[in-house]
Amino acid sequence: MSSVSEIPQADWALWRTMRGMNEHLGRELDRQLQRDAGISQADHSILITLFDAPDRRMRTGELGELLAWEKSRVSHQVARMEARGLVKRVVCESDGRGTWVTLATDGKRALLGAMREHAGAIRELFFDELDDDEKQVMLRAMTRVLDKLTAACESEAAAQASGVA
Amino acid sequence: MSSVSEIPQADWALWRTMRGMNEHLGRELDRQLQRDAGISQADHSILITLFDAPDRRMRTGELGELLAWEKSRVSHQVARMEARGLVKRVVCESDGRGTWVTLATDGKRALLGAMREHAGAIRELFFDELDDDEKQVMLRAMTRVLDKLTAACESEAAAQASGVA
Repeated sequence: MSSVSEIPQADWALWRTMRGMNEHLGRELDRQLQRDAGISQADHSILITLFDAPDRRMRTGELGELLAWEKSRVSHQVARMEARGLVKRVVCESDGRGTWVTLATDGKRALLGAMREHAGAIRELFFDELDDDEKQVMLRAMTRVLDKLTAACESEAAAQASGVA
Repeated sequence: MSSVSEIPQADWALWRTMRGMNEHLGRELDRQLQRDAGISQADHSILITLFDAPDRRMRTGELGELLAWEKSRVSHQVARMEARGLVKRVVCESDGRGTWVTLATDGKRALLGAMREHAGAIRELFFDELDDDEKQVMLRAMTRVLDKLTAACESEAAAQASGVA
């Protein structure tokens, strides 16, 4: 936006390109997942996070933190996926620390069914356009940005937990 | 994911970092916009796109293309924003090419009110972490990816229009 002087034009160009690229990638990958496995990207994010977790289960709070989703978004998404048989919710009485989400049989099947095509789509749409130097620069830079964002979240959560905020 | 052999581990790390960074950035900017201007990021995307358009108006189809949103998402979003007085819809009888969306007074006010804080948040969360070389590499690489994605969309749309697909 030309009237904002705080950020140089070239930086705005990078910002718009990055956000546009992510919207387009998200839309294309959503289509691919719907077509090949009948699941959305949100379904896929939950399924793959559970698949990678120890014992293929995770607390809803941890899921939200890893995915950077609000608590209510995780709850609604998990409820819809449970109704479709993709995940199961298990209340763990003994530890009193809330609900676990586990991968259900149909969820694992959908994930494994989508995997090859999904990886292929990501490679074709994104990685095939990048050379090794670009990948390294992007990983280094984005890791720094993400680390700072995550640290800010954690200190905010800690402040809320201790009643400071 | 360790069992997918098509994409090297280092590439998956970049992919997960990029997607995670974008989720986190989206969430933080959403909070900032809600707090400072009472609008969502989706509202903001529509408002700023209209603000930058000639005569501050645009057809719904063009809006969807620029934002990489599905047509139904644009329609729902615009209807909600119209109900809140942020945009107006104008059916242009004479040219018979559908509906224009224009910026309403309250939409312009919300956008201008959010602008300084929004730019500040983007700078603090993202640009302050990057050096000039990284910015240049990222802009070049992402522009290539986005151009390819956009070209694929356009040829798909052309094929549908000509009845090939």
